[in-house]
Amino acid sequence: MTLKVYCFRMSQPSRAILIFCKVNGINFEEITVDLTKGEHKLPEYEEINPFGQVPSIVDGDLKLFESHAILSYIACAFPGVSDHWYPSDVAKLPCLGTLLSIFKPLSKKKSYVAKRAKIHSVLDWHHSNLRRGAAPFCLHTVLGPLLGIPTSPEAAAEAEKILISSLSQLESVWLNENGNFLLGNSQPSIADLSLVCEIMQFEILYEKDRIRVLSPFKKVLKWIEDTRIATSPHFEEVHKVLLAAKSEMHKLPLVENYESMSSIKAMLA
Amino acid sequence: MTLKVYCFRMSQPSRAILIFCKVNGINFEEITVDLTKGEHKLPEYEEINPFGQVPSIVDGDLKLFESHAILSYIACAFPGVSDHWYPSDVAKLPCLGTLLSIFKPLSKKKSYVAKRAKIHSVLDWHHSNLRRGAAPFCLHTVLGPLLGIPTSPEAAAEAEKILISSLSQLESVWLNENGNFLLGNSQPSIADLSLVCEIMQFEILYEKDRIRVLSPFKKVLKWIEDTRIATSPHFEEVHKVLLAAKSEMHKLPLVENYESMSSIKAMLA
Repeated sequence: MTLKVYCFRMSQPSRAILIFCKVNGINFEEITVDLTKGEHKLPEYEEINPFGQVPSIVDGDLKLFESHAILSYIACAFPGVSDHWYPSDVAKLPCLGTLLSIFKPLSKKKSYVAKRAKIHSVLDWHHSNLRRGAAPFCLHTVLGPLLGIPTSPEAAAEAEKILISSLSQLESVWLNENGNFLLGNSQPSIADLSLVCEIMQFEILYEKDRIRVLSPFKKVLKWIEDTRIATSPHFEEVHKVLLAAKSEMHKLPLVENYESMSSIKAMLA
Repeated sequence: MTLKVYCFRMSQPSRAILIFCKVNGINFEEITVDLTKGEHKLPEYEEINPFGQVPSIVDGDLKLFESHAILSYIACAFPGVSDHWYPSDVAKLPCLGTLLSIFKPLSKKKSYVAKRAKIHSVLDWHHSNLRRGAAPFCLHTVLGPLLGIPTSPEAAAEAEKILISSLSQLESVWLNENGNFLLGNSQPSIADLSLVCEIMQFEILYEKDRIRVLSPFKKVLKWIEDTRIATSPHFEEVHKVLLAAKSEMHKLPLVENYESMSSIKAMLA
């Protein structure tokens, strides 16, 4: 049975999972759960995810939600995912590797496990820092009024404080080593994809908010570009909906070309 | 080199890690980082954890923080941890198992990975639900005034709303299957330990707050007791500091016996 991905491309974690599946050549069916039509609250969707959120996946008997858990599951359960995305426990190596691994010293096994643990550490940090700033900042500036959700300047200011602190920690801790990606890696992991998709949501902000918040963080901007390039053309294709929404919300001309619509390169210049 | 655990027993994730190590017979050194003395802000500790939070571990060259990441790391990196805590990728099976696993069909491997993914799903949910209610609720009721941190009744009310909703979801989703533990399991996982330690923090609340918030959730209370019993006597030993603090904060007679000081059994009756 084909993997089913229930998602909504306007949601940042949905995009991370779609890009991940596409980049890794995983055969899946994309099922849109349109949040603007309340499809996430339909009983048939709550059978899959009782919390009524996107994304979720169904893979055979397994129903799974929470995007980080989904990313690590897909990385382990499907063949063909390159190891840099989520470094293997030894079991993920090809058969010969598994066989040899029996004779590996414990220290070698530990170094695999440690690489994976560092990725978990970033993903856990994401929950209580970057996401805790980014999601309410979008809500209390641009999204709330559009969706008819009450907003407050105090909540926006509080979210901005958490967001700036998170972006600053992202630069000083997680992007503080050689290598273009988080933790000093030379290739992206599921953490890069998850965090970059979070920040890409800022495309729909009012320009003055986006520039104030994001443009001081040049290392972050470069890393977003590096992640885009490493996952091109799927990154651009999956973000098209977001850039089209940006154009509609802010009455900008719709340009099909990703680079003309994205603000990242301009802020980097 | 011995595993070093940097922690403070008044912190709920610190307790989860200490109990986990003790239950699994892991050889480690406990190093107290006294938050009340600001030891988490000392440069030598920020060398280990630049965010200045507890817990952290040092294992050889690896410095790791974020309690969920630490729990899964220890479960994989140290021999002797029973599989129910964090179901193995196949690599964690004994040598013969690893050998045989090469011949296992993909569906069998997937079922291992799925079990682990479900635990990640609960842990991710913890970040953005239970913890997001529990930590500020403690802060804005009992802890803030003690620590000289400004509090507000609005923040306490908002935290209580998230907390009640989380406890209700815990019962209706995560504890909604047969089996004494989360996800219908018959033995605890790292998720049980992490979430139970979070809720145990409510021991220090004012009694009226604790009873109002927690006593309606009988399934949660029973699960806390089941987790305590499964990890006894380490659970009681590690929670002693918390119960002593409760006694001091609320001018209660200090009783050495855990069961006399803990409110869980009384609320279950």
